[in-house]
Amino acid sequence: MAETFGESFEPAGVLSLTTDFGIVDGYVGIMHGVAYGEARELSVVDLVHSVRPQDLLEASFHVRSAWESFPAGTVHVIVVDPGVGTTRRSLVAHVRGQLFVAPDNGILPAVFAGRHQDAVSYGVVDAEAQMAPAPSRTFHGRDLYAPLGARLASGKISPIAAIQGPADLESIIKVPGAEPSFDGNHAQGVVLHVDHFGNAITCLDARDERLRRLLDRANHVEVAGRRLPVVGTYGEAQDGDIVALVDSFGLLEVAQVGGNAARALALETGHQVVLLASG
Amino acid sequence: MAETFGESFEPAGVLSLTTDFGIVDGYVGIMHGVAYGEARELSVVDLVHSVRPQDLLEASFHVRSAWESFPAGTVHVIVVDPGVGTTRRSLVAHVRGQLFVAPDNGILPAVFAGRHQDAVSYGVVDAEAQMAPAPSRTFHGRDLYAPLGARLASGKISPIAAIQGPADLESIIKVPGAEPSFDGNHAQGVVLHVDHFGNAITCLDARDERLRRLLDRANHVEVAGRRLPVVGTYGEAQDGDIVALVDSFGLLEVAQVGGNAARALALETGHQVVLLASG
Amino acid sequence: MAETFGESFEPAGVLSLTTDFGIVDGYVGIMHGVAYGEARELSVVDLVHSVRPQDLLEASFHVRSAWESFPAGTVHVIVVDPGVGTTRRSLVAHVRGQLFVAPDNGILPAVFAGRHQDAVSYGVVDAEAQMAPAPSRTFHGRDLYAPLGARLASGKISPIAAIQGPADLESIIKVPGAEPSFDGNHAQGVVLHVDHFGNAITCLDARDERLRRLLDRANHVEVAGRRLPVVGTYGEAQDGDIVALVDSFGLLEVAQVGGNAARALALETGHQVVLLASG
Repeated sequence: MAETFGESFEPAGVLSLTTDFGIVDGYVGIMHGVAYGEARELSVVDLVHSVRPQDLLEASFHVRSAWESFPAGTVHVIVVDPGVGTTRRSLVAHVRGQLFVAPDNGILPAVFAGRHQDAVSYGVVDAEAQMAPAPSRTFHGRDLYAPLGARLASGKISPIAAIQGPADLESIIKVPGAEPSFDGNHAQGVVLHVDHFGNAITCLDARDERLRRLLDRANHVEVAGRRLPVVGTYGEAQDGDIVALVDSFGLLEVAQVGGNAARALALETGHQVVLLASG
Repeated sequence: MAETFGESFEPAGVLSLTTDFGIVDGYVGIMHGVAYGEARELSVVDLVHSVRPQDLLEASFHVRSAWESFPAGTVHVIVVDPGVGTTRRSLVAHVRGQLFVAPDNGILPAVFAGRHQDAVSYGVVDAEAQMAPAPSRTFHGRDLYAPLGARLASGKISPIAAIQGPADLESIIKVPGAEPSFDGNHAQGVVLHVDHFGNAITCLDARDERLRRLLDRANHVEVAGRRLPVVGTYGEAQDGDIVALVDSFGLLEVAQVGGNAARALALETGHQVVLLASG
Repeated sequence: MAETFGESFEPAGVLSLTTDFGIVDGYVGIMHGVAYGEARELSVVDLVHSVRPQDLLEASFHVRSAWESFPAGTVHVIVVDPGVGTTRRSLVAHVRGQLFVAPDNGILPAVFAGRHQDAVSYGVVDAEAQMAPAPSRTFHGRDLYAPLGARLASGKISPIAAIQGPADLESIIKVPGAEPSFDGNHAQGVVLHVDHFGNAITCLDARDERLRRLLDRANHVEVAGRRLPVVGTYGEAQDGDIVALVDSFGLLEVAQVGGNAARALALETGHQVVLLASG
């Protein structure tokens, strides 16, 4: 914490957007327009806009699985907000040369749960920096987050200038279940997202040392009243089998070979999943 | 009108696209490719491509609610066209340093109805400027509008060079209902769009001085045989209430607190809405 | 073939992506992030991401109908892959100053079937160039194709340096039906794609000299047990008529005036279509 907030952030001019706005309306296009108005040279990437309305767990999955594929100097704006319209502060998080801007509604700690949490610095967005000329009642993506994200991504404002001060992780709102718990022979987490193949992806991250140790022992997953084997690859299972395995994002997922696991087990975001090591 | 057409337009290299092409086909990607072929340095923004086929009212809403969020020097191309395949001219509109390119099918006057109409200059696209080497029968987005929009957005062609002459508003085709009417104690307009929350957004624009004056008096909205209160914020209504209020775009919308107003009242694009001031 | 592979390719910094990943997950956004990490100055175009899972014919249609609208120096990455997870080589194709990167699964020959095949050079991607630091089991779009495409599009690597050697067309996997066959008075092909208007677009390309010659004679199309007239424009048919005509991409399509031909005839990707010249 000797480092000044966001000191190692070097803006790369890349801005990613994650929202629950869908693409049937023009809300996302408007955010692009606002961003280019702030800094013409930006590249704006649509990460996901089909997050289920106000589903913070799903949104956290998309950002968690994506951000390390972006270059240092990227700013990720996340506008999925059950509390829109109410008064609450906004946060900036800094980790490994990238920034994350979002409401203080639990989304940011969920992105880093069980993986990078210790390396993240949080700051509270300065009320001044946060304000567009005439912020509207209901469209903070346009009036607050897109302009702030664009200014940070282009270097028009530095991270330290954008915040009024650091925020303790303890003071930040959390999403229940997003942080996995560990206890001797088992780990407990939740389904973050059901992808379009029907795979139910969990917050149990194989790059978390504690989970790694459990996975190194023979093990099973308990979910929806079922006990499933953990396999190394799909090739170890038969067609129709429902198994758990570590996916290409490093996350434990429940999948059915040649089928749709979420449908077969009626799994949804938030569903509890337990990993058990034997012996 | 002493100003030469589009004289104050300074190209910013930003091109926005609004179509009813959907994203299941590659039509939109092709327009991007054509635009980059004209001017590699452009930023191309997808505003909305899920406009209901040939729904000019819906398209007008998306552009109306978005364009003021874009930087000066943006070019907006709108290809939603019930008359595609028939012979009709194309238009360029200039307002406040931004350009709009579309067929003469009513879409442009609808974008500016009851708000900026007096400030807009219209020009008829020159047949020469309009023509790609071999314009195809059915894909004007690729062969006409994307290249023209890209050339204007990049400054390869000036607005005045792109037109054969100014167009009188009277000579331009209109969409029935898009222009609200005012009469003493009431204003009449239509639903432009049902958004993905089920809010029915109308063409009654609170930034229109005439509407402003009506809103300043106690009032109601009549729609679908119902009389609804006009509230300032959702907080003034109870869960389940259907109300009218001014949304974050400045437009009067019909919304149900915690519900889907369009479904509850069977509202669709084009549905008539009347604002009544009492007294 | 005296030309060194890809010698005339001049990178334009434009990268197009075609996948079957959908946009409900963040996979496409991740590919954008990876590309910008390789080369910040790229413009990345989403061609289509809603290809039916593993449908190579549909994917070939989207790329076939789009690539000539892109500037010289564009790189097209196509990740639609029934064989993902298995070991197979990757290919680069070069034609008319553009590059195409994809698995050796039949997609590339299908893109050029009956049109540019003779002008295409194929190369096998070098195993070294193909490898990201830690390629994952299941996400080659992120770990292999996006980085390689970005390096080629930005000129960080030359086409000749990216391949281990040329590939004979004979050695490359083909998609059955993608290449039309010709025989005296008729040509035979398949439906590549049903667009969102219900038009069934075939691989019979009017710019293929052999098809051109058949079309110049009075003719019919046989499909789904029906014999349909080939018309020059929709205007030659009555409302409700099902006809064949050459579309704005130069491809023969089956369409219903004011209706949905694919639904009326139960047409799908892969359905056989025969063009018959009379006399």
